[in-house]
Formats: sequence, structure tokens, C-alpha cells
Amino acid sequence: MDRKADADYDCTFLDDAVTDGRVTHKESIREQYATDESPHSGHVPDAVVWPASADEVCAVLSAANDRGVPVTPRSGGSGLEGNAIPSAGGIVLSTAEIDHVEISPEDMQVTVGAGVVYDDLNERLASHGLRFAPGISSGNVATIGGMVATNASGFNAVRYGETRDHVRRLKVVTADGRIVECGKGVVKTSAGYSLKDLFVGSEGTLGVVTEVTLGLVGIPEYRKAALVTFPSRVAASGAVADAIGSALVPGAIEFIDTTAIKMLNAYHDEVSFEEHPTLIIELHANNSGIEEDLAFAKAICEDHGMLSWKAAGKANLEDIWQARRDKYPATQSYRDDWEVALVGDVVVPISRYPDIVEEVSQASEELNLMTSCVGHAGDGNLHFTSLVDPDDEEMVGRAHELNERVVRKAIALGGTSTGEHGIGIGKRQFMNEEHGQAIDLMRSIKETFDPNGIMNPGKVLPDA
Amino acid sequence: MDRKADADYDCTFLDDAVTDGRVTHKESIREQYATDESPHSGHVPDAVVWPASADEVCAVLSAANDRGVPVTPRSGGSGLEGNAIPSAGGIVLSTAEIDHVEISPEDMQVTVGAGVVYDDLNERLASHGLRFAPGISSGNVATIGGMVATNASGFNAVRYGETRDHVRRLKVVTADGRIVECGKGVVKTSAGYSLKDLFVGSEGTLGVVTEVTLGLVGIPEYRKAALVTFPSRVAASGAVADAIGSALVPGAIEFIDTTAIKMLNAYHDEVSFEEHPTLIIELHANNSGIEEDLAFAKAICEDHGMLSWKAAGKANLEDIWQARRDKYPATQSYRDDWEVALVGDVVVPISRYPDIVEEVSQASEELNLMTSCVGHAGDGNLHFTSLVDPDDEEMVGRAHELNERVVRKAIALGGTSTGEHGIGIGKRQFMNEEHGQAIDLMRSIKETFDPNGIMNPGKVLPDA
Repeated sequence: MDRKADADYDCTFLDDAVTDGRVTHKESIREQYATDESPHSGHVPDAVVWPASADEVCAVLSAANDRGVPVTPRSGGSGLEGNAIPSAGGIVLSTAEIDHVEISPEDMQVTVGAGVVYDDLNERLASHGLRFAPGISSGNVATIGGMVATNASGFNAVRYGETRDHVRRLKVVTADGRIVECGKGVVKTSAGYSLKDLFVGSEGTLGVVTEVTLGLVGIPEYRKAALVTFPSRVAASGAVADAIGSALVPGAIEFIDTTAIKMLNAYHDEVSFEEHPTLIIELHANNSGIEEDLAFAKAICEDHGMLSWKAAGKANLEDIWQARRDKYPATQSYRDDWEVALVGDVVVPISRYPDIVEEVSQASEELNLMTSCVGHAGDGNLHFTSLVDPDDEEMVGRAHELNERVVRKAIALGGTSTGEHGIGIGKRQFMNEEHGQAIDLMRSIKETFDPNGIMNPGKVLPDA
Repeated sequence: MDRKADADYDCTFLDDAVTDGRVTHKESIREQYATDESPHSGHVPDAVVWPASADEVCAVLSAANDRGVPVTPRSGGSGLEGNAIPSAGGIVLSTAEIDHVEISPEDMQVTVGAGVVYDDLNERLASHGLRFAPGISSGNVATIGGMVATNASGFNAVRYGETRDHVRRLKVVTADGRIVECGKGVVKTSAGYSLKDLFVGSEGTLGVVTEVTLGLVGIPEYRKAALVTFPSRVAASGAVADAIGSALVPGAIEFIDTTAIKMLNAYHDEVSFEEHPTLIIELHANNSGIEEDLAFAKAICEDHGMLSWKAAGKANLEDIWQARRDKYPATQSYRDDWEVALVGDVVVPISRYPDIVEEVSQASEELNLMTSCVGHAGDGNLHFTSLVDPDDEEMVGRAHELNERVVRKAIALGGTSTGEHGIGIGKRQFMNEEHGQAIDLMRSIKETFDPNGIMNPGKVLPDA
């Protein structure tokens, strides 16, 4: 942690901005908002505020903007790149209290406050046979506002798309306190600049999203899944590339390397995976034709020399996914004295998926690191995680070197430095490399929307 | 047409900006670029230029920007809202010569020059079993650049999405001549502000798109379609709302009212439709489960009192779609002396589709107009077209009144003034009503990207 409790800014003005005492200046509470789930250094904010409406967000931002006080919006705090760390001090603005839910089943859409938790939303939607579909690992914590901020996605993006693909309308409060509606609750529109798409993925650096209208999908009537093992990483990742390139549209297709399998086995009693490179393939459909797709998927796996194909029944499918969702804690607890250095998150064109999987493996070997890989493989998305001794600076440095090397390789392969975790603090160093001159345009937008630079400073854009 | 050939600007500087004489100052050619397919008044540009590369676009824009000369980008010229009319004179920049195509079948994507025609692209993709999927009526003329400019879509958006949903990467030249790459050729990314989404739908007012990387979908192995007639508009549109609200994902679901059916019958010898409100329902799948979906669709239509269900075989399905695609010329030629006043293009939440269909009918009756309706109903998208005597100003005025009334109703129902044609000149009058304060943010982006206001002036944003 950079610092303890010396205030950077006087934030007593917040007491007038929100009602019911939804603000704190207490050190013990402020300290809880210094970090997120990332390994990046925390920073204790000077105040934490929980506005309950767009109007209260407006009051907070207007006052902060007038005084030049930094504001870091925060949702579930499950970010992995320091997206919600108040690096410059000032205010943490939590959207947790903005949690209304209005379901329009006949329009397959829902309007929610930014503070609604992903899993809670899907629980409420289930009785309507509907679902908000990206399928993230941290759904028990992550909120819709946070998902919009980082354009989050996960297991099911391969079929249903990222958060962006579901956002139809946003209510946003700008740095100077304007409350703006972007987009409409309709399937499509060509009416001017798509401001909503500008706010999606902007990580609270352009404004605070307070309300979101999301398109929903039907819960599929049929789900079929299989655990498939392969003799090598290349074989498994090649099967993925082939399946996607053959226009199969799975509900999920997840890659887990042998090291990750060992970690999941050690962490969970409910499931025991064979210790080989593995795919979880899940198909969704509303009719019995799903059996034909399953046979097609199996044939592709056979072409790639699969070792085993184990159908996952209804009974154990949730256990399997829960095990996979617990990959992060499973890794954290794999060695008592070591911890996760960082969670890699690159995407490449699907045909290059085997290449990026191999790059991680080779670099990890060269750097003498214990690295595990999982990935939403159907999107070309790979996560890699090195376990390190946190007291061994040199070893931590090697883990960062691995990340840099893999990100540079992903960019060289035509890919991106982050598929779903966002830029935050951790990926700023790659922004120039990934975007080139486009950075200047991003910077000009930032200056236009937030001329005083109060919105989540130190995130997304690299230093000029 | 506002004016003939008096030059607003001296554009001789263009002779140095492009090679091989791809520029003209000749009146006879310039006159051909004064209008598009819309009924809006044309304006003869001072020069037309056909750059062959991003570098040449850069040379044109840099020089024009230095001199404050307006530039109106143009692609297929099939726009229906005056999007490509050079209202302020100056230069028409055609992207027709930028027509390279690089297919990556294994990545299900293609990189194309902005001037590539939609149908031509899909013809080239067909041998790979792939398709760029929005399914527009004017695909024989419209180019990918134009589709990106207006976020175009059509018949198949209900399953596959708008142009926006397929755009992975853009190469754009800004007003001051910077060549910028936005996005990557990958399925998903969370790396900073989504500039590509800002350019999609900006109608050349923020820069010129020269190259596009598109995600593709597989051509479905199975297509099943039916022509379904109903006793009333309300019954037909109610069936659509019900089908979509039940999470059916058709390949296309098209509404055609009785007046439109009569026009199609009069125009085409190949097909003869029953003269009732009609749906074309088409399903796509890669397996035989399609039959179950078809039965489900039929049951919904039965619930809404359908009069007839006629399966469309492979032999006549293309004829049916061609007839539908020809709705615009069929309307134009329906009465020798009359012509289309304008083509309406609104979208509402799907549950309100019957309401907007009724609004058009009622308003048209009250205004004593001959109006026909078709619509990509599954998106809640309705097109309506009044035939008028062009010499009868009062009648033309009534057609505009109809449009205004229906657009206002669509916005009141939570919808949008344009689903796929863009704002151009025709919908600017509704921008404040649709977007409220968001207009100020759009304006600030415009000023940041194009401070001299040379890019397609007079389009998209309303006058301040």
C-alpha cells in the first residue's frame, strides 16, 4: 500500500451530497476500499461515498469537479487490474446502493442499477426463463456497473457476446454532473454517435454509469456438456480453433491446462479431473438437434487425438463449472507460502490460439515459473497465472516479465492485451503498443469529457 | 437541387492528392454525385475524388482541412436520408476504389476496403461457407464502408445483429489526416475506449473509414421458411412480438402489410402473394432440430389466428426475398405519376410493435395518404412509405407529417427515430427529442475530432 491515512483531499463537502449518512471519513472503513482483487498496490481514499441515485452521484461529482478532487467509481471490487484502486486519493464512489431491477420479459430486456450483482440478477431473471449471458467467474461479487466499466465477459461470450453486445442503454453522470441517457431500450438503432459504446469499457474514466438496460437471452432448453482430455496443449487448443473455424457456436468452450487441473483437483473434493489438457465443451439449444452438434464437436476432438470424452450430466455440470470458477482461489491456495503474481488475460485470433498457448508454456519454462492456464478458448481468450514467493522480488519480476512477453506476443499475433479484465493500472504500459496513434484520439475524448481529470485518474490511458 | 455548378470552393489542389487522374472537376460528372437514393434535395459538389488508399485519403483530407473545404464521404450512394449529399458543396470523396478483400476463413473474419459492395463480398465468402450477415435490401449497391457509416442492417439482424456487432477493427483517416487503427481482428477486447464503435454510425462526420475487419458467420446448413398470412396487422405483429419474446431466434422475420403485398404483386411476375398482412419467417440451423423450431413458430402463428401457412421451398425462397428486396422500386412504380415521399425507419421495443404498426395505419388514414409498411419485425423495426404526387406540395407535406408523427410515437414508446438508415439530413430534426442532453456530448466529440467542421457538414447533429 502506497500510504496510510494522510488525507490528500478534504472531502467533508460530501456530507451534503448524499442523504442518510451514506458517506464515511473513517480510516478503518476507508482502508477496506484501498485495493481490489488485483495484486496492484492499494491506496487509502480520503472518503467513501455510497450515493443511492443518479441525482446523488450528480451532487458528488459536481462538488468534486468544482474542487478538483479525484473520484474513483467502484462496483464489486473484483477487478484484476487495479481498475478500482483510488491511486490518486480522493473519493471512492461505490454504486452498491443503486440496485433497482425492472424486468421487461416480453422485450427480453431488463433495466438495473449499476450496483446489482451479476448472479443476483440472473437469479431474478431465471423465473422468466431469461438470462444476462456473458457468464463471468466472479459473478457472485461483480456488479453490472463494473461489468459495463470493463466490458466484462467470460464462459458464455463465445455464444452470446461480451457485456457490450447486450448493453442497449445507459444512464451516465458526467464529471461535471450532467445526467445523460445514452441509447434506447431497443435491439438496434442508427441514431447518431454511439455514446453508450464509448462508456462501455471506459472504466469510470469518462463518467459514472448509474443505470443499464440490458438485452437478455432465453435460458436454453437443452444443455449438453462434455469433459474432453487431450495428449497435449497444442492438440486441445487446435481442437478449439477447428471447432470455431467450422462455425460451431458452443455455449462455452473452456481450456484448462494440466497444471490448472492439478490445482482444481487439490482445491475441490466434489470433482476430480483427469490430469491432462482439458476442454469443457458445452452446447446450448432449444431443440433436440443439439445431439448432432455434440457429435460434430466430438468428431473434431477425435481429429485432434482426444484421450477421453466424458459426458457431463446435469448432476455434475454445476460442480464442474463451480470448480472452474474457483480457479483463482484454487491457485492462491495451492502453495501455502506463494501467491498469484497477476492474472494474464490476452486474446488472439482463434487460429493463433495454439501459438499463444505455446508461448505461455515456453516463456514460463524459460523463466522458471510455475504457471497455469485456463481460457475462454472459443474467443481466443487465454488466462495465465504464475505462483510466486511474494518476498522474492526477483521471482515476482520474472512473473511480470512473462506477462509482458505474452502480451507482446498476443499483440504481434494481431490480438489484444486484455480480453475482459480491462486496462486499469496493469495494462496501461501496453496501450501505446496496442493502439498506436489511436491513443491520441482516446486522450482527446478523455480531455473533452473530463477536463479537470477527476474521473478515476491513473487508469486506462498511459501517461502522456 | 439547391444549385447548379457555381463552385463554392476551388478544389484544384486535389489534382496533387491522388494519382492516375482519380479526380474530376467536370460538371457532367459532379452532377451525378449531387444526390443519393433519398428524396432530399441534392447539391452539386465542386469536385469528386476517388482515392485508392488510406494514404490518398489522408492527402485529400489534410489538404481540405488546411483550406476549410467540406468533404462528404460517399460509398454506394444508396442512403435514404441524404447521408451522402454534399449539402455544403466542396468535395465528394468516393471510397469505391478502395476495394481489397482479404479473407481469413479459419478466423471467421475478413478485412476489406470500404468500397467493397455487400453482395460481392458475400459472393466471395460463399465458397468458404461464410457470410457477412446483416442482410440488407440494397446489397447490390451498398458498400461495407457505407454500412459501417450508417450502422446498416436488414433482414437477418434479428439473428446476427447490426453491422456494429460484426465490426472488429477499422482503419480510419481523421479530418486532419491521421491514419488510425481502431480495434483488433479478435472476437473481444477490453483495451480502452472503443473508438471503432464511435466511428460506426457516425456517417463520415468524424473521419473516413477506409478499411474494415468484419467477423463472419457460417452459412447455415438448414434454412426453412414459410409465408404466413393473418387476418389483421395487429395479429401479424402480435405473432412477431410473441415469437421474439419467447426467445425464438429466427434467421429473419419480416412483416409486410396488405398495401405492400399489392405493390409486390404488381411489380413481380415470379411471385404472387395472398393479399393479407403477411410474415416471412425464416429459420437457420446446422442441424435437423430446425423442424422443432418451425413447429414452435407455427404454433405461435396459430395462436394469433393465422389464415394460411405456406412453406417456402428452396426453389421459390430466393424469389420471395428478391420480391421483398424490390419493395422500394415496386413502390416507386406503383403509380406512374406518383413517387415515394420518404422511407420511414423506426424501431420500438418488440412488445410495442403492434402499437407502432397501428399508429402508422391510423395516422395514414387521418392524413389521407396511401402508405405501405414492411419491417424487419423481429428487431421491432418498421419501414413505412407514402406515395405522393410530387407536384402536390400539400400532399408531400402530409407525408412528412406522417413521418414526424410516427417517429415521435416511436420515441414515446421508448424507441428510436432510425433503426438502420442513419440520421443524414432527414432525421436531424428528431435528434434533440431522442437524445436530450446526450447531444451536447456528441457535439463535443464532433468538435474534438473535426474542429474545422469539414467532415460531411450538415449531417447527423442538429444545428446548435
